[in-house]
Amino acid sequence: MTIKELASQLGVSTATVSRALSQPELVAPETRSRVLAAAKACGYQPDAIARSLRTGRTQSIGLIVSDITNPFYATVVRAIENVARPRGYSVIICNADENPQREEEALALLASKQVAGIIHASTGANLRALEALRARGIPLVDLDRASGLSGVDAVLVDNALGARLAVGHLISLGHRRIATIAGPQTLTTGRERLDGFLAAMRSAGLPVPPEFVHTCDFQAESAELAAAEMLSLPHPPSALFVANNAMMAGAFAAIRERGVRVPEELSTVSFDDVQWAKYIEPPLTVIAQPAEIIGAMAAELVFRRIGGEKRPARRVLDPVLIVRGSTAAPARAQKPAPLRPASMTNPLG
Amino acid sequence: MTIKELASQLGVSTATVSRALSQPELVAPETRSRVLAAAKACGYQPDAIARSLRTGRTQSIGLIVSDITNPFYATVVRAIENVARPRGYSVIICNADENPQREEEALALLASKQVAGIIHASTGANLRALEALRARGIPLVDLDRASGLSGVDAVLVDNALGARLAVGHLISLGHRRIATIAGPQTLTTGRERLDGFLAAMRSAGLPVPPEFVHTCDFQAESAELAAAEMLSLPHPPSALFVANNAMMAGAFAAIRERGVRVPEELSTVSFDDVQWAKYIEPPLTVIAQPAEIIGAMAAELVFRRIGGEKRPARRVLDPVLIVRGSTAAPARAQKPAPLRPASMTNPLG
Repeated sequence: MTIKELASQLGVSTATVSRALSQPELVAPETRSRVLAAAKACGYQPDAIARSLRTGRTQSIGLIVSDITNPFYATVVRAIENVARPRGYSVIICNADENPQREEEALALLASKQVAGIIHASTGANLRALEALRARGIPLVDLDRASGLSGVDAVLVDNALGARLAVGHLISLGHRRIATIAGPQTLTTGRERLDGFLAAMRSAGLPVPPEFVHTCDFQAESAELAAAEMLSLPHPPSALFVANNAMMAGAFAAIRERGVRVPEELSTVSFDDVQWAKYIEPPLTVIAQPAEIIGAMAAELVFRRIGGEKRPARRVLDPVLIVRGSTAAPARAQKPAPLRPASMTNPLG
Repeated sequence: MTIKELASQLGVSTATVSRALSQPELVAPETRSRVLAAAKACGYQPDAIARSLRTGRTQSIGLIVSDITNPFYATVVRAIENVARPRGYSVIICNADENPQREEEALALLASKQVAGIIHASTGANLRALEALRARGIPLVDLDRASGLSGVDAVLVDNALGARLAVGHLISLGHRRIATIAGPQTLTTGRERLDGFLAAMRSAGLPVPPEFVHTCDFQAESAELAAAEMLSLPHPPSALFVANNAMMAGAFAAIRERGVRVPEELSTVSFDDVQWAKYIEPPLTVIAQPAEIIGAMAAELVFRRIGGEKRPARRVLDPVLIVRGSTAAPARAQKPAPLRPASMTNPLG
């Protein structure tokens, strides 16, 4: 069965059939479904390689993740693909590795590959490159982090709420000496989780000495060093809030290395619910982000723009607290951390 | 500083400077280093977006992974990027999700985006599409799995050796009733790990009843069902060899669900050493693949071809056994599994 025979059978033009198969966004959804159903029924099997080389392009959207080894992004990728594929789009993934220069390279790459839209977890740099892409009419969606571009589509998480849930849980168990391993302060996620932590401590009237706040890079190694340092303080914290899963893995290495018992000697709450979190000893109490919904929503937003929508949309999703074995009441009733008056407000300030 | 000024300072043509910055493979490595060092020293900052839109292309290689949520591939991606970036290449990643049709779409996408070469973890289908790409002169490298294309570059792991190491370790501890959760038999990795398991059992004179072999899809869900079924046998296995990390997570869920104690009642060995493996309770004994070396070698091979090399290269790497807490001697000395004579050889045959 050729495209011509298929077209005459359906009573549409060959151009319509061809477009339905290769540029589905130009064809009405009902027509597209009819063509695809008929093509499938008669066993029409377009040769994807030949077709894409002939047309010179394949429909695709670009996705820039900040760290491909972070399982949060793996889930996001899958969710985006699940929205893109039924629409006939492939997803091109680039890994910026939290590096502004790599992010710029990835943006340039995706632009040159003529993607129909870009979803990206911004490093917070590259505003100029983003403006250039927008000026060319390429729809952009901020994923997980705000890029700083005004009026852009965005799917974000209420990180301050996540931090409040974590601190609230620890305080309700009786903890007073609570420390944090924070993410990079160049990223909105890093800033908001730390700000949320400090605000929650402040409103509970609990001081945060400077040595109880380490800002790291969302990677395991730096968090391992930070945790080791805090655990060797003369008056170490009794609880730790860690701002992502990779840093929790690093902190866990330091905790095990020093033989600190969790939760007896130290409670931990960390952002992200990874596959193995419930099988760790002890199972990890976490702030879970709705990664699948984040990915699906970001994809819906980019297609909404590809479809011609002009108004920007912004979605902010709520994380949830999942209580497992890594948090418990402290061994004895606690006094707050000793504190020099100067650091009462913001230890980074 | 413009390209012209840079060229006159270095005593080379503007074309050479331009090529060194945008198509480095066309310039001698020493020249390229000189140009880049000088460009950096004088603060020359090419605008990546403008440049790639002007030249219409950005140098890139394509990478098709079979499952982006598998941490093995995350490590591979990073290693490939670490080789590609210093050469001025970006990496475009596609996720085939173990699905032959998606793999074909990804191959078509990468071809239409004019990548300089493709590294892919093959589903074992799509020989025709691969031949078409090769006919167009696009270098291909098989990663982790043999695609079936003859004379192709490949970086593989000795999976049979991995299976032998796992079974040998279990037998040396005294296990006789050893079961396996195998991967898809359409994939070389799935077949070789199962064949290796069966061969090792056979050479030790240990029978493998059919109910001790489940072939699943390298995903957690199917492995959870398989493990649940084996654990509820009247005479369950005392040890389990699981063919990848995702299936180990699924098997672990079934093990915990049923309250089976590891290693007292069941020993486990699984392929892949994931970040959390050593923090699980008990820490997992694994067959570790050299994921970083696999990625780096695959990237070296694709650039070797891009550089004009005609002869194919094939590298087969050895996995290693890492013994942790999930394996121990069985509770009591064991007799081999009871077995009908017919299934002595290959339970799948």
